[in-house]
Order: sequence, then structure tokens, then C-alpha cells
Amino acid sequence: MQNFTFHNPTRILFGQGRIADIAQEIPQGAKVLITYGGGSVKKTGTLDEVRQALTGLSLFEFGGIEPNPTFETLMQAVELARRESVDFLLAIGGGSVIDGTKFIAAAVPFDGEPWDILARHAPIESALPLGTVLTLPATGSEMNCGSVVTRRATQDKLFFAHPAVFPRFSVLDPTKTFTLPPRQVANGIVDAYVHTIEQYLTYPADAKVQDRFAEGLLLTLIEEGPKALADPENYAVRANIMWTATLALNGLIGAGVPQDWATHMLGHELTALHGLDHAQTLAIVLPAMLQVRREQKRDKLLQYAERIWNLGDGDPDARIDEAISRTRDFFESLGVGTRLGGYDIGADAIPALLDKLEQHGMTALGEHQDVDIERSRKVYELAL
Amino acid sequence: MQNFTFHNPTRILFGQGRIADIAQEIPQGAKVLITYGGGSVKKTGTLDEVRQALTGLSLFEFGGIEPNPTFETLMQAVELARRESVDFLLAIGGGSVIDGTKFIAAAVPFDGEPWDILARHAPIESALPLGTVLTLPATGSEMNCGSVVTRRATQDKLFFAHPAVFPRFSVLDPTKTFTLPPRQVANGIVDAYVHTIEQYLTYPADAKVQDRFAEGLLLTLIEEGPKALADPENYAVRANIMWTATLALNGLIGAGVPQDWATHMLGHELTALHGLDHAQTLAIVLPAMLQVRREQKRDKLLQYAERIWNLGDGDPDARIDEAISRTRDFFESLGVGTRLGGYDIGADAIPALLDKLEQHGMTALGEHQDVDIERSRKVYELAL
Repeated sequence: MQNFTFHNPTRILFGQGRIADIAQEIPQGAKVLITYGGGSVKKTGTLDEVRQALTGLSLFEFGGIEPNPTFETLMQAVELARRESVDFLLAIGGGSVIDGTKFIAAAVPFDGEPWDILARHAPIESALPLGTVLTLPATGSEMNCGSVVTRRATQDKLFFAHPAVFPRFSVLDPTKTFTLPPRQVANGIVDAYVHTIEQYLTYPADAKVQDRFAEGLLLTLIEEGPKALADPENYAVRANIMWTATLALNGLIGAGVPQDWATHMLGHELTALHGLDHAQTLAIVLPAMLQVRREQKRDKLLQYAERIWNLGDGDPDARIDEAISRTRDFFESLGVGTRLGGYDIGADAIPALLDKLEQHGMTALGEHQDVDIERSRKVYELAL
Repeated sequence: MQNFTFHNPTRILFGQGRIADIAQEIPQGAKVLITYGGGSVKKTGTLDEVRQALTGLSLFEFGGIEPNPTFETLMQAVELARRESVDFLLAIGGGSVIDGTKFIAAAVPFDGEPWDILARHAPIESALPLGTVLTLPATGSEMNCGSVVTRRATQDKLFFAHPAVFPRFSVLDPTKTFTLPPRQVANGIVDAYVHTIEQYLTYPADAKVQDRFAEGLLLTLIEEGPKALADPENYAVRANIMWTATLALNGLIGAGVPQDWATHMLGHELTALHGLDHAQTLAIVLPAMLQVRREQKRDKLLQYAERIWNLGDGDPDARIDEAISRTRDFFESLGVGTRLGGYDIGADAIPALLDKLEQHGMTALGEHQDVDIERSRKVYELAL
């Protein structure tokens, strides 16, 4: 096991009806800016429920944070928050709204050009406190301190992380996911699955518990994922998926182990240049990535084959092929395509993707830093 | 899944050499009281290592906190801390030292009779901040907010918990466990195992992740436990056991599920009246407890039999018997006896144990509150 520091101070309020408890989590007299996305929180009544829970506080609202939230949009919220001297942010939504709100939290008190927080990793000294009401289980943003923001003008999708933007609290009410469109449900399952894989499927590091926990998350997603699509109002299923997605990226399974994240980096360029959903890009890249790096990942691929897909016997290479193939089938069974061709992206798109990777310095990815541009080309090609 | 609130703010500094990092976790200029037990921290050099890491701070020391720490001893530390206006506590040791230090932390600023914190659950408003350097993986106290303290005069073993006594940080350096006596190593493994069982082996609650995580902890203890005894300086093994024991009682696997704890309650009386090690009492009580309540726990016992002991086929009752029997064998294989007789305790001791349970109001224990005195009698009898 590698040395690690683990610290996750986010308070989770899990279960039906927990929005009623958020007033206790926000300082009395706070001026609260509620942030959200495209407006489904109005239709479902969640926004009203939050307003009601916060009766007596000064509330401001900022809607329209888009999927893959943009710097341009978020800066409008920063201006609003500064103008109104807001002192608490409350995000209602999925990973995009929460990631965007973390950026707002860091940018409001930032003394300088906020874009530098992303582009130059400019040091943050403080951030507005924030809470979240999660409506889409997927990214884990509700219990971590990372954020991905896109600059619309240049299509750069950049990342920052800082302990100051851990949510103070997050409400996880599974009933809020009942009305999600199937595509978002499926995307969320794929997203949580690949988050887990990025922290698990590397090389053995004598981290027995982290392996078992990661395997527990994968098995739960495989068992419960299809049920969430077939039976959208099954509370128990939704609860399991919601908690699984949070635990897939809250620092726990990644503590003390090597991590990969190459699939995410190749995926980000697909979103930036072709507008694919984040999870779609992961479903496309992962099976190809595992094939291209099967030798480096051999020991963990065999463990994955055995413990997740019950493939403990027979030729090892055949087992690895079968495990990768079942992973692909699982994504496809959820309705998430795993081939570039299925999204009308052909071989001619690959050079531009590789250029973007190079521009962003993504030339030595993965747990061995051996995913260079040539290897990335192979992955994109195998994903055609 | 049941509704739950999960919040665990303890920062874990895991790995060899992490004591060097503790100065960053303690406020500059703090007056620090270092607490420890019987003096092994002097022999092993850990106390010196801590002193060196804290060069420049005002340090005070209080040693002699005993296993099953007593109110009487701890109050001497409270007096010292008050007299010297200490403002940070640093516990070096295992669960007893850490539990005791939590009590000191709560008692120092407490306005009233500190015994009431335990005996009457008197409300705490604040506590001194504390950190820990763990030397004995077992209780999980390094990452939770609970504490068990015994009053020597009456042999009452009582519990309190409060968020204010979460350690601010805990150092988990596996090398600090290399020199532990085998009995303490074995006790720690049994303790972590039974902590996990108390939160897992109840009735199904549609909490798939919690089940998988609990099973991951149990499997790791079964795989790594014997290796820790056979090969004491195997870093990877020690690291896995250390992190497993912490995760077994940090709130994670118990969030959203029914919990039992009857085995612990019956065990506490054995320690109080007969001086047995905490883990010995658990090893004695658990197999009998599972037999007595096999009908109420049937579904989870079958899941435990299948996922932990690979007993998926054959007569269900035989599988349950076999799973309980293997649990007993596992404890015995570590050198921890599972029969009262092995500790020279006979049937004549049972009435006094039951009296103590009754005195302490332990008359409706377990996840169904159906472990009454009669059922406790059966458990003790079956454990003879």
C-alpha cells in the first residue's frame, strides 16, 4: 500500500425527505445563492422544496449552468454573488452544476483572473462555503473537492481541486432520481463504473481493502444498474446506485493505490471536440484502452475477470478478452454505445483529438505514464 | 437502505514515516498533552519520535492509561490538563489510550461532574481538540467519535459518543505494529472482525454497498490475519490490517443499515467482572450469539456463509452451522479461545453477568431488541 492522506469532511444527509434538514447546515442569516441547470429542478418541485426548507434566509438564484459547465456562464454567477455579497452557495443538480458551483465558490473571493484557477492552477486561499442537493448520481462531485470546467471559446476542459471546495453537506435523496431520463441514468452508471476502474484496474499494490471495496462498487453497479432502467421508482435500487456513485469518487478507494485516469483524459477531448456526453466518451475509450494496455494491466485484469465476471478458469488471455468484452456488453446493455462509429465519428477525427491531447500536455498518461500520443492513437483507432 | 447521516472529519495520515507530519496538524504555539499507556511507546521509540516531530511546542506527558481505561486514572490527566491550560491532546497507543483521551478531551472543559458524561449522557458543548498516533489496530477509535470508559470502583463499563471528540488527525504507521505481542495482534483482528459483523450480520436492508464493503473487510481479515502473526514485519500485511480495522468502525459500513451490538454488550460484562481482554469476550460470545439467534439472522447468515466461507450449496441449516463453526475456528486459529471454560469461567458465573446486564438496562439488545435476559442466559450457557 502506498502512503496516503485521507480527509473527507463532507456531511452526507442520505434518504427520502432529507432536504427538510438543510437549514440546520447553513449559518443563520446567510445570503444563499441557489445554483441549478436547465430547469428540471423547477418542474420536479425540488427547487421549491429547497426554497421552503430555507424560509427566512435571503435567497438568490442562478439557473442555466450547462452540462460540461462553461467558464463564461459561471462568471455571470460570480458577478451576481459578488454584487449581492452572497455568503453561501447551494447547488441543486448533478456533477455539472456541482462542479460549476465549486468554481464559483473559489472564484468569488479570488484576487486575480479566475481563469487562472483552472489554466495555471493559481493557488486559492479561500472559497465560499457550499452545499449540494444531488439529483443525478454519477460524478461523485457531491463528496469530493474536484471540479471540471470548460472554456467555451477554446473548448478547453480543465480541472482544479482544493480542500476549500469540499461541500459542507450534500443531500442524497434517491427519490429525486426517479424522474431522470434513461440516458442520464445510464450515463451515471457508466461514469461511476469507470471512476472505479480508473482507481482499481492498474497494477497490484497490496491494497486488499481498496480492491475489495472497488470490486463491491463494480458488482453493485452491474447488479443494480439494469434495474434502475427497468424499474425507475424502485427506491432501494436508486439508493444503492446513488451511494455507490458517491463512494466511487470520494477519495476512499483511491487512497494508497496507483491511479490511471487515461481513459478520462482521452474522453475529455471527445467531449470538447464532438460534444459527446462524458459517460459516452468513457464507454468508448475504456474497452479499447484496456486492450491496448493489457500487458501492463495483466495481473489486475485477471483479478477483475475472476472477481467481477466469475472468469477464474481457462486460458488467461481468453479470460482477459472475455472480461473486456463483458465490460463493453454491460455498457451497451445500458444503451451507451461503445464505438466511435456509433456516434458518427470516423478515423479522420483522430488527428485533431491527438493534437488537443498534445496541446494539453497529455503525453504521458496512466499509472506508468506510458500512454503517449502513439498509444493514444491506437486507443482511438481501436475504438472506431 | 435506511436514512442516514454520515460525517467523518478525521484526517488520516497513513504510512511509514508519517509521524514527521504531525506538527502541521497542531496549531502553532499549542500546549500539547501527550497521553499513552504502559510505557511500550518509550521502549519502541515512538514517544521520542513524536517529541522530535513536535520540537518547539510546549509538551506535557501523562502515561499509565490502562487497558479498559478507568475514570479514576483519566481524571488525573484532566486535572493536569486543567492545571497546565493544555489546549491539544495527542494520544499514542491503541483503543484504550485513544478512548481515554477522548474522555479527557470532553471532561477538561466540562462544567459539572465529568462522570455524568458517561453515566447520564450529560450534554457536551465542546472538547479539547485531539490527535492520535495509532500503535494497535483494533478498535477503530482513531477514526470515530466514541469512547468506552470503566469506573474502577464499580466495574461499570460505559460508553459516550460526541462529534467534538473525533480525532482531528490520526497517524497510521504500519511499522509501529511490528513489535506488538501476538496476543494483541490476534485481539485486534478479532475486534475488527466482530465490529464488522455487528453492523453486517443482522437482516437484509437492501444496502448492497454496505454489505459488499463489510464482506471486503471480513475477507481481508481472514486472508491477512494469520500472516500478521506468522510474519510480523510484513509491511503490506500490517498495512492492510491497520486500514481494515479503522474502516470497520468509522461509521461507513454502519451507515443506513440495522446494527446489532448485543455481542459487545454481553462481552463488556465479562471484561468488567472477570478481566478478560475485550476481544476475548467477543470471540467467546459471538459464535454462541449467532447460534441462539440463527432464525432471526437466517438470511444474512446464509449470505455470510456463501460470500465469506464459500458455502453456497447444500442444506441451508448445515451451511449456517458450518459458517458459525468456521468463524469459531478462525478465532481459535489466531490463538483466541472461544469458550468460557478456556478462561476458567463456569456456569456459576452466569447469574452475576445477567445481573450486571439488567443493572445496565441491557434487557432488549440487538437489531430487533429481542435479546432479553433469558436469551442472554442462553448465549452465556452455549458459550461455556
